[in-house]
Amino acid sequence: MRATVMHGAGEVRIENVPDARLIEPTDALVTVTRACICGSDLWPYKTMPHSDVGRRMGHEFVGVVEEVGTAVRTVKRGDLVVAPFAWSDGTCVFCREGLQTSCLHGGFWGGTDFDGGQGEAVRVPLADGTLVVLPVERDDALMPSLLTLSDVMGTGHHAALAAKVGAGKSVAVVGDGAVGLCGVIAARRLGAERIFILGRHPDRIALARRFGATDVVSERGDDAVARVRELTGGLGVHSVLECVGLDQSMSTALSIVRPGGAVGRVGVPQEPSIPASLPSFFNNVTIAGGPAPVRAYIDALLPDVLAGRIEPGLVFDRVIDLDGVPDGYRAMNEREAIKVAIHL
Amino acid sequence: MRATVMHGAGEVRIENVPDARLIEPTDALVTVTRACICGSDLWPYKTMPHSDVGRRMGHEFVGVVEEVGTAVRTVKRGDLVVAPFAWSDGTCVFCREGLQTSCLHGGFWGGTDFDGGQGEAVRVPLADGTLVVLPVERDDALMPSLLTLSDVMGTGHHAALAAKVGAGKSVAVVGDGAVGLCGVIAARRLGAERIFILGRHPDRIALARRFGATDVVSERGDDAVARVRELTGGLGVHSVLECVGLDQSMSTALSIVRPGGAVGRVGVPQEPSIPASLPSFFNNVTIAGGPAPVRAYIDALLPDVLAGRIEPGLVFDRVIDLDGVPDGYRAMNEREAIKVAIHL
Repeated sequence: MRATVMHGAGEVRIENVPDARLIEPTDALVTVTRACICGSDLWPYKTMPHSDVGRRMGHEFVGVVEEVGTAVRTVKRGDLVVAPFAWSDGTCVFCREGLQTSCLHGGFWGGTDFDGGQGEAVRVPLADGTLVVLPVERDDALMPSLLTLSDVMGTGHHAALAAKVGAGKSVAVVGDGAVGLCGVIAARRLGAERIFILGRHPDRIALARRFGATDVVSERGDDAVARVRELTGGLGVHSVLECVGLDQSMSTALSIVRPGGAVGRVGVPQEPSIPASLPSFFNNVTIAGGPAPVRAYIDALLPDVLAGRIEPGLVFDRVIDLDGVPDGYRAMNEREAIKVAIHL
Repeated sequence: MRATVMHGAGEVRIENVPDARLIEPTDALVTVTRACICGSDLWPYKTMPHSDVGRRMGHEFVGVVEEVGTAVRTVKRGDLVVAPFAWSDGTCVFCREGLQTSCLHGGFWGGTDFDGGQGEAVRVPLADGTLVVLPVERDDALMPSLLTLSDVMGTGHHAALAAKVGAGKSVAVVGDGAVGLCGVIAARRLGAERIFILGRHPDRIALARRFGATDVVSERGDDAVARVRELTGGLGVHSVLECVGLDQSMSTALSIVRPGGAVGRVGVPQEPSIPASLPSFFNNVTIAGGPAPVRAYIDALLPDVLAGRIEPGLVFDRVIDLDGVPDGYRAMNEREAIKVAIHL
């Protein structure tokens, strides 16, 4: 079968790889119908050392179940399913607590040992705990939004929960990528009164406004901090969604949150430590978040997607086929596209 | 009047200073009857550069109101009062949210502009928002425990709340000083099922056990981490109270907390950044805490002290008079005493 393999920074290829197949009785074999490229795929795209073996890519996909192992009970051949970006057994202590990204038997797609979502098919371990059946046809108009339940919509929701967004709160979103934009949706959905988006790219800002952002802060660095403070009577915002992962973005987040507020971080940290220990301490700021247990959030978000109350699929502004994936990486890396969907 | 002045590392003196007096109509003048030395006083005791002017010391005290300004309504001459380690107006947005340490008009005792608690008398700004009347006589047997409401008992309680301690949870306390020991009390009071104390000093361990610690981890560094993990089935604990403030203690805290758990930090950070950004991210660990709004907690904790349900005053293992303060600093710094009470 054909799949995406990254061999180093900027080196993305579509290659022939061994066909996905059942190995464990708890596996399902899924033919991918929709996948996409994630902002987090851009970290290795910028920095990965060359590898001849390469790394299978993609952790967001929707597909059709082709075959299931003998122990699988909750999905069957022909089901249209969405996969979260981590697989999980659904039964361990962490899964029961709703933290499937820490599943004792779980794991992540791609790499050298597992199939990635950016390919024709995927072996899905622990299918019962992992996959969620979608009650629509494979070409449903809602498909883009349903695909975001794999990662970005659930991740934006996680950032908002970690940042303690709630009714009447003021919220700032640092990062205008797909996750940040989904964070705007999540903040609005959770009742935030005022939502600041930090960004300056016209297309992204327009989408943020459509999703519910009330204020745009186009300044950068210290000027952005000053602007948010000015707009909040000097206090800062209750909640900050940190959707980037750089030292600078975390510093900005910690500088615009008000005393007693919270920063929900979902951008994978690219630095070994969290800055501003003393200021965040003196302000009693909570720092929370991590990889979103999107499997837990599908139940909460799916009804809103099906009813059209939220439209996270609007973050996709380009559609490609599998052969278009290398150029899709380039386009996202150059911020030419917000998020690229792959139709198979 | 006489008061404690620190002139540099190891240089603590009792000196004659200007008499405390009313300045603002919202002030109260309080004659100190009990005060104490705090673990946080030891940071400048270890590191402060020499200063001829010096710094007035002490932020924990109980005393008698001698005189009040014309605007003061809630305390009167003759009242026995306890002061939190920060003063606050009780009316600003942060005070109303219960975060008096971020009061827009508040401040901290001592330094160069304000009286400290380790002296004969104190001018108390914003007396209505700050002081709490104690319904006992000045020599009541409960006085040691009531004095801890100034700081260490409220701070231990804050660490426990920040670490999301609750019924049935497993808790580890990093730091066997007075705050850590009060953290054990707080964890027990909030229903923790299992409470690990990390420490090895026999007197402190004995007190921790009396306060409710169920497990003692006397190993250090990586061995302590391994031991906590071994005792928790490899998972770590739900809640960690970080009551030190060093890089090493925070690293330990972040290494023994389980995925989805929380670290409540109340030790003033001595490093510019928080370690282990990536591991804490991948484990979805919450980092919270800061200076405790002890003013907010007096209402909750006072009934338990008055009823004898908690006995935080047991952390005092030495009593001195004002002239004994320099030696009291030495004794606490050399870990000869857990916490030193000053009787005036």
